This record gives sequence, C-alpha cells and structure tokens, in this order.
Amino acid sequence: MDIRFSEIAHAFQPSQIRNKIFDDPGVISFAAGKPDSSLFPTDKMKQVFNNVIDRHGEGAFQYSETEGLKDLRTIIANQRMEVAGVNVNAENIALTSGAQQGIEFSAKIFVNEGDVILTENPSYTGALSAFKAYRPKCVGVTMDNDGMKMEELEEKLQLYPNTKMIYTIPDFQNPTGVTMSIEKRKRLAELGAKYKVPIVEDCPYGDIIYEGKRYPSVKSFDKAGWVIYLGSFSKVFVPGLRIGWVCASAQILEKYIMAKQNSDLQCSSLNEVLTIEYMQAYDLEGHINKIKQVYKARRDLMLERIKQYFPEEIKYTTPNGGFFIWLELKQGIDANEILEKSFEDEKVVFVPGGSFFTGTEYKNFIRLSYSSVNDKEIIEGMKKLGKVVSNYY
Amino acid sequence: MDIRFSEIAHAFQPSQIRNKIFDDPGVISFAAGKPDSSLFPTDKMKQVFNNVIDRHGEGAFQYSETEGLKDLRTIIANQRMEVAGVNVNAENIALTSGAQQGIEFSAKIFVNEGDVILTENPSYTGALSAFKAYRPKCVGVTMDNDGMKMEELEEKLQLYPNTKMIYTIPDFQNPTGVTMSIEKRKRLAELGAKYKVPIVEDCPYGDIIYEGKRYPSVKSFDKAGWVIYLGSFSKVFVPGLRIGWVCASAQILEKYIMAKQNSDLQCSSLNEVLTIEYMQAYDLEGHINKIKQVYKARRDLMLERIKQYFPEEIKYTTPNGGFFIWLELKQGIDANEILEKSFEDEKVVFVPGGSFFTGTEYKNFIRLSYSSVNDKEIIEGMKKLGKVVSNYY
Repeated sequence: MDIRFSEIAHAFQPSQIRNKIFDDPGVISFAAGKPDSSLFPTDKMKQVFNNVIDRHGEGAFQYSETEGLKDLRTIIANQRMEVAGVNVNAENIALTSGAQQGIEFSAKIFVNEGDVILTENPSYTGALSAFKAYRPKCVGVTMDNDGMKMEELEEKLQLYPNTKMIYTIPDFQNPTGVTMSIEKRKRLAELGAKYKVPIVEDCPYGDIIYEGKRYPSVKSFDKAGWVIYLGSFSKVFVPGLRIGWVCASAQILEKYIMAKQNSDLQCSSLNEVLTIEYMQAYDLEGHINKIKQVYKARRDLMLERIKQYFPEEIKYTTPNGGFFIWLELKQGIDANEILEKSFEDEKVVFVPGGSFFTGTEYKNFIRLSYSSVNDKEIIEGMKKLGKVVSNYY
Repeated sequence: MDIRFSEIAHAFQPSQIRNKIFDDPGVISFAAGKPDSSLFPTDKMKQVFNNVIDRHGEGAFQYSETEGLKDLRTIIANQRMEVAGVNVNAENIALTSGAQQGIEFSAKIFVNEGDVILTENPSYTGALSAFKAYRPKCVGVTMDNDGMKMEELEEKLQLYPNTKMIYTIPDFQNPTGVTMSIEKRKRLAELGAKYKVPIVEDCPYGDIIYEGKRYPSVKSFDKAGWVIYLGSFSKVFVPGLRIGWVCASAQILEKYIMAKQNSDLQCSSLNEVLTIEYMQAYDLEGHINKIKQVYKARRDLMLERIKQYFPEEIKYTTPNGGFFIWLELKQGIDANEILEKSFEDEKVVFVPGGSFFTGTEYKNFIRLSYSSVNDKEIIEGMKKLGKVVSNYY
C-alpha cells in the first residue's frame, strides 16, 4: 500500500521511554519514570467510588465542560497552585489529560514551522517528541547544577528572535534530577517578559522534594503573564486518571481550551469527580509526605550503590526530589550498547540518555529511575549494571 | 500583552455546539448531541467499581499501554467491530479519548497544509474545527437521502489529486440524520482504494438504529486497508469515561498510536478496566436495545410536533437512528437569528446549521437533537420553537 502520510506523521518516532524491552517479564527496570503503584491510595479510592455515585449520580458519566469541572479547578487553584506560590482562581485553570497534553498543546499554540523552542539540554524526551510534530527548531541551553545557564539563555533569545517558547522543568528535572535555583527562576521569569516569549513550566515533580520546602514556581515570579504552568496529579496521586492542568492568564488559557475542544472535547468527567472527592475527603499533603520518604530512601540506596559498584570517575547527579539520577559515562561509550548488554546479560534496563538531547551528539548518558523499584531490586540491579558499565572502563 | 500565537491557534474558533447559552438554566435544549444520562447504567457501575479494585487492584491507577489494554482491544474487536461487520483482532485496535481524538489524529496523520479533505456537506462541525488546525481545504460533497453523491465524490477525487482523506459519518449522520445506503458504502470503499485515499469512517451512532438491522460499515467492504473506522462508547454506554477507538491496518494504526503517545500518552487506565468489567459482567446489546426504544419514541414525538407546529413547506429529515433531525428553512432565513429569538423569547435552543457546512453560504438550517430531552420538553419546546419559526413565514 502506498499511503501518503503527512509530514507530521513522517516525523513521528517511537518513544525511547516506552521501549517494549522495559516490560519484559523478569527485568529489573530503572527505566520507567512512573510512581510506585504500591503507594497509591487504592483502599481510599474504593470509598471514593461509592461517594462519587451517591453524590454525583449519573452526572459522573455524562459529558461536562471542556475546561474541567469548576469544583476541581477551584481545588487546583486553592491547593496545588498555592503550594507552588501562585495566587490564582479557577478561571486561570484548565484541565488536560496529564501534563503531556499541556506540553503538546503548548507547541500547537505557540509554534509555527521553523520557529525556535529553547529547552534545557537535556530535557524530557516526551516533550521533544511532541514538539517535533510542529517542526520547530529545538535549541538546547546548557545546565549547571542549579539549572539552565541564564546568560546562555539570553544569548540565544537574542540570537533567535523567532523563539516562540521556552520549555523548562525546574524541579528535579527529567532526566537530570537537577533543580533550578530561586535566583534563576526569578531571572527566567524576567527574561520571558523582556523578550516577550512564553515560558512553559512543566511541574510534575515539584511536590516530591526530599529536603527543605517546595521551591516557588517560575510562575510565582511572573508579573505580566508570560509563564504557563503545567501541573499533574500523576506523580503525587495516581497517573491512571489522566488529570493534569494548565495555569495561565485568561488570554492564553482560552487557546488551550480551544485546543482541548478540538482534540478530545474534555477529560473524563468520572475521573474529575473522583479527584474532587479524594481531595475533599483525604489529605493529599499527608499522602505526599508519606511517598516522599519512600522515594528519598530509594534515592539514598541507589546513590550508595553507584559509589559501591560503578567506576570511581563516573559523574552523577544527586537529586533533591523526583524520580531520576543522571549518570555521565566517559566519552566514547554508547549507552545504547550498555543497555543492550545489560538487558541481554543481566536483565537490567534503563533509558539511554541520547534521546533527551536536542541534538544527536551525546550518547554517553544514562537515566536511572528509582521510583518504582524496591530495595532488593535496587541492590541487585545496581550491582549487575555496575558490572556491565565497569567493563567499559 | 503582545503574544505571538501560532497560525494554528489563530485559526481556532469557539465551538458552535458548546455555546454557553445552551447551559442556561431553564432552557429547553435541542442543541446537545449527548445521550440521556437517566439511561446510563449507573447502578451497575457501582458494582463494576468494586469489581475493578478487587480484580485489578492498584494497577487500575497506574500508567499502562499507549494503544490500550489488550483485554479491552480484544472485546472491541470481537464485539463492537463484529456488529459492524468487520473481522479483526486486538492488533487492529487502538484506543482514543472518544472518537473526537481519532478525528483530530486523522487530520494530523494524513493532511498537510493545503491538502484537500472531502466530507459530506454538511458534516460534524467538531470534525471541521479539528481539521482546521492542519489548514486543509475542506471540500463538501452533496448528499442525497441515502448519503454522499458518489458521482460527485469521484469527480472531486479527480479534480483534487491532493485529496488526502475522505471523512464520512455513514450512520444517522451528524447533523442530518441521513444514512448511507449499502450500495454507496461499497462504492465508497472502492473509490478509496481506486484513488488511494484513506477513508475515515466516524461511527458513534451506528448501533442506535430504530428499524432493521445495523448497517454493515464501510470498513466491512474494505479489502485493501484504506478505511479507518472510528468507534466510541460515548453514545451507547457513557461518554464520561472518554473511551473511543481506531480500527485500521497495522501500518496505519502505528501512526495513530504514535500520535496518541505524543498527545497524552494513553487513555485512563481506570476507565479502560471499568469498561472491560462492564462489558464482561453485563449485556451491552441489551442495554442498546433498551435505549433505542427511548430515542425512537422521542424521534417520533418530535417529528409529529414538527408536522403540527411548523410551517407546512418546511423540509426535514426522518432519521432511522441516532440523535438528530435536520430542518431546512426557506432561503433567506438566518437560523442564528431564529436562535437568538427563541432563546430570548422562549428559552428554547438548538444548533444553527451554518457551522456544519464547509463553506459559509448556508444559514437556513437547524439541527434538532431529541436525545436528551423528555416528552414534556419536546412537546413544550417544539410548540414554542414552531411559533418563532412560523413568524418568518
């Protein structure tokens, strides 16, 4: 069959984070950036189910508003945005199917073919893939231990006047685990306003901080409305409901709502009321505090085993939250080859770092996720992976 | 603020079928193309909730496959596609967030800027809006009482060699209620193959047939794989779970799955297992037979009241299924003006027909939906609307 696909469809690439070998039975997977399902409030959800039918009846199953139910948007504004240091109300919130949909809409709304998107380099591969459909030029900005280099960012804003979006993950970044400093957050908000470039702040992990208080979001420093905040319940509550949100000025939010209308009409009404009932009946902050302890212990264990089993000269990040550690191997090593070997010989998998870069030049990085593996798996898997990696040194 | 939106975002238009006045309290609405929520199997869903937690546990809340859970895809292949006359298996099915997402993906996958999409004229306004983002030229094909004129379709296929998609709603079409004959379905499948143009067959209403057996889908006549079938549980089960599907050849389906990955990763895992449990525990065919009787009685009542209260020379369709009757007013009458009057004077609303056309030339049409209004509302609302319309004759 000689099917003529669109240019967009020709540009589609299979996801590097949803490789089938990651689901192979018996593997120890440091690949999946997913929360540990044993931490989900499953028993509480059973109660919530019954409340939903009693209180919302058949309305839970009917069509509802494209932007999302007002009660849920109010909870998000009052609770989730408040902890991010942002003072907004329901009119500034629209729901999306996870933050991923907010990412895809951002490119759709701001970017024409050939326009520039500035991102941290490396950045979330699922965002880079989603952007690709709109055929932008994605230009990476180098990171320090406290986030994007702001001088380099400004240079690139000047160099590329057709920059239409800055995409950032300021908290425990995917894939590096790096957190942007408060000073840089302020500066980033200023630069967006100065150059009139929307900043898309992707915050799925912000609440999962191990030491200290949650960082104020970039959006909290946004005076003129250039920052679009993407939030999600996927990492702190459950991902299976597909409830995320966009927080933006009314003028910008209107475009996201129209994109949502065209794409899939609305999120699941049922999942919206389930989320409302859970948030009203239970203490999400308490739940977050509980899961943070578990993830922190796993981070500690993984870091310890890197020290124990990996070559001494290897560089790695020490995340203060989130799910990821980022490993830099010596130049010349191809992490894809390491993955092949560690899968075949040891049944241990991870995500090779290449697909997180805007270019194709870096192959010597590994993203390790510790969020959905238990202590035994970390101990065993890191020993095995350390052995494979050590063979290259 | 001087925000530079993309060309796509500039082309967004507010939905004509989600006008805020339709939700005004106290209106009688013939506007909403939604199922009657009093017909939902709400009590059964309460039982299904408990089964889901018992059987799937925390997995119901975790991330799962982009294409959808295999058990659900198998049920869809074996049950829903079988009633559409199509013999496929789970490998030919991928889930979407309602058929709407399948519609949007179709344009994304097949259409470049300036390419032609051929559609029935009029057609579903939500599809025309979704297509617009990809800046095609939408060319309408005139309809008879048994669907698209096939000679005109072929002429246009010859006239526009850059036709990349034919979009059709063969059963109880939105907005006209018209059904495509079996002969035309065969011919349409042949034309797609002959001109190598994908046919996107949108089938949300196919099961809701009042008299006779369900029509075989266009896909059932598809030998070479040019037909993409879009299905949905929204009208026959519940819309609030946002579960629809695409049925296509493996080569085409792969592109839909990659579009899904980029857009929102996956449908709601919870809603997938809820649908599986419902389908396994209860008889959807029996449920469909029950709701069909209700919708048929409402259609009869609405047709009767058109005869009674509307000007004699008015033309209208007599749908054999689905949710809609299509009214043609005499030329020169603007249905938008009628809507204004009937809302202000009588608190009765409907969707003016203009937005369903590929061009802007037709204003004298009205879409009436009888699916979510009770007998009392139909009797009262049609009397009032008939009065408003009669004033123009």
